[in-house]
Amino acid sequence: MQHTITILVENKPGVLARVASLFSRRGYNIASLAVSITNDPTVSRITLVAEGDEFELEQIVKQTTKLVDVVRVADYTGTPILDRELALIKVKADPGDRSAIIQIAQVFEGSIVDFSGEGTFTIEVTGRTDKIDAIEELLAPYGISETVRTGRIAMARGATTAYGVGHSSTHIFEESAE
Amino acid sequence: MQHTITILVENKPGVLARVASLFSRRGYNIASLAVSITNDPTVSRITLVAEGDEFELEQIVKQTTKLVDVVRVADYTGTPILDRELALIKVKADPGDRSAIIQIAQVFEGSIVDFSGEGTFTIEVTGRTDKIDAIEELLAPYGISETVRTGRIAMARGATTAYGVGHSSTHIFEESAE
Repeated sequence: MQHTITILVENKPGVLARVASLFSRRGYNIASLAVSITNDPTVSRITLVAEGDEFELEQIVKQTTKLVDVVRVADYTGTPILDRELALIKVKADPGDRSAIIQIAQVFEGSIVDFSGEGTFTIEVTGRTDKIDAIEELLAPYGISETVRTGRIAMARGATTAYGVGHSSTHIFEESAE
Repeated sequence: MQHTITILVENKPGVLARVASLFSRRGYNIASLAVSITNDPTVSRITLVAEGDEFELEQIVKQTTKLVDVVRVADYTGTPILDRELALIKVKADPGDRSAIIQIAQVFEGSIVDFSGEGTFTIEVTGRTDKIDAIEELLAPYGISETVRTGRIAMARGATTAYGVGHSSTHIFEESAE
């Protein structure tokens, strides 16, 4: 089962390496990872998608909470969330295939953001992971030369936040909780 | 100056931790990082945005190239690229402010993807980093309770790819190049 985990960290060098090495030491596979600034300049936010044994993951999450510069860890499993990722897909677009490719982009509410003289389209598309997987699969027969995806980001639905305001169902692990 | 760097790595545990710790050991600040699968299931793609001294960064990039499981490193500085990120922004939406917030979302081609009974909107928006910064700044006076951003992803314009096909201007560092 895939888990989507949010880790709020102090914006300091080294904390990302510590988090990543904790997961890898346990041989845990990280499917995607997105790290960026937040509205608080001292805090960065890591969204991590990991797959594997439930019990083992719970142990890793508890250990993550104890790492230096980790502020808060939230496992969104079982919580209603908004989750999205963004992809850029570069695909061969022979003149006879262009209408079909444009139609695929339209159906997925993607947009063609580049068209090279050499006959490639670059498509930008946003959505849940399975939507991005689906458009990639449809474009594959034309010849995808390159794909880049952001990895998943997530946020609880409603007014609750990863900072813990009004968290009823999200499983929050706090530094002080252990 | 900000550098956007693409690192293609074997999809194996540990490589991300090695890359992150190489940057942090040198005290180099990673502004954002996005890791995800590619169209090749054995390869993951890291997009890293780093800021700092040119010469120092060049040394780090060269060392990254030599790390185990790193396939290829491309520094897109000076190359025409498509770069995008995605953000979810949760903002307080008092009844009197809702039209104004909806207008801001429309101008930035964002969409309101959640509306809680407690009076918050969640806005999804895609674009270059400065566009995301701009909408965040406009929404801030209403009260942002939470922001999550994917971090930047990038791709060369035209038919060239990070795999090296037809790279004329992108600075590619290959394992064998040293």
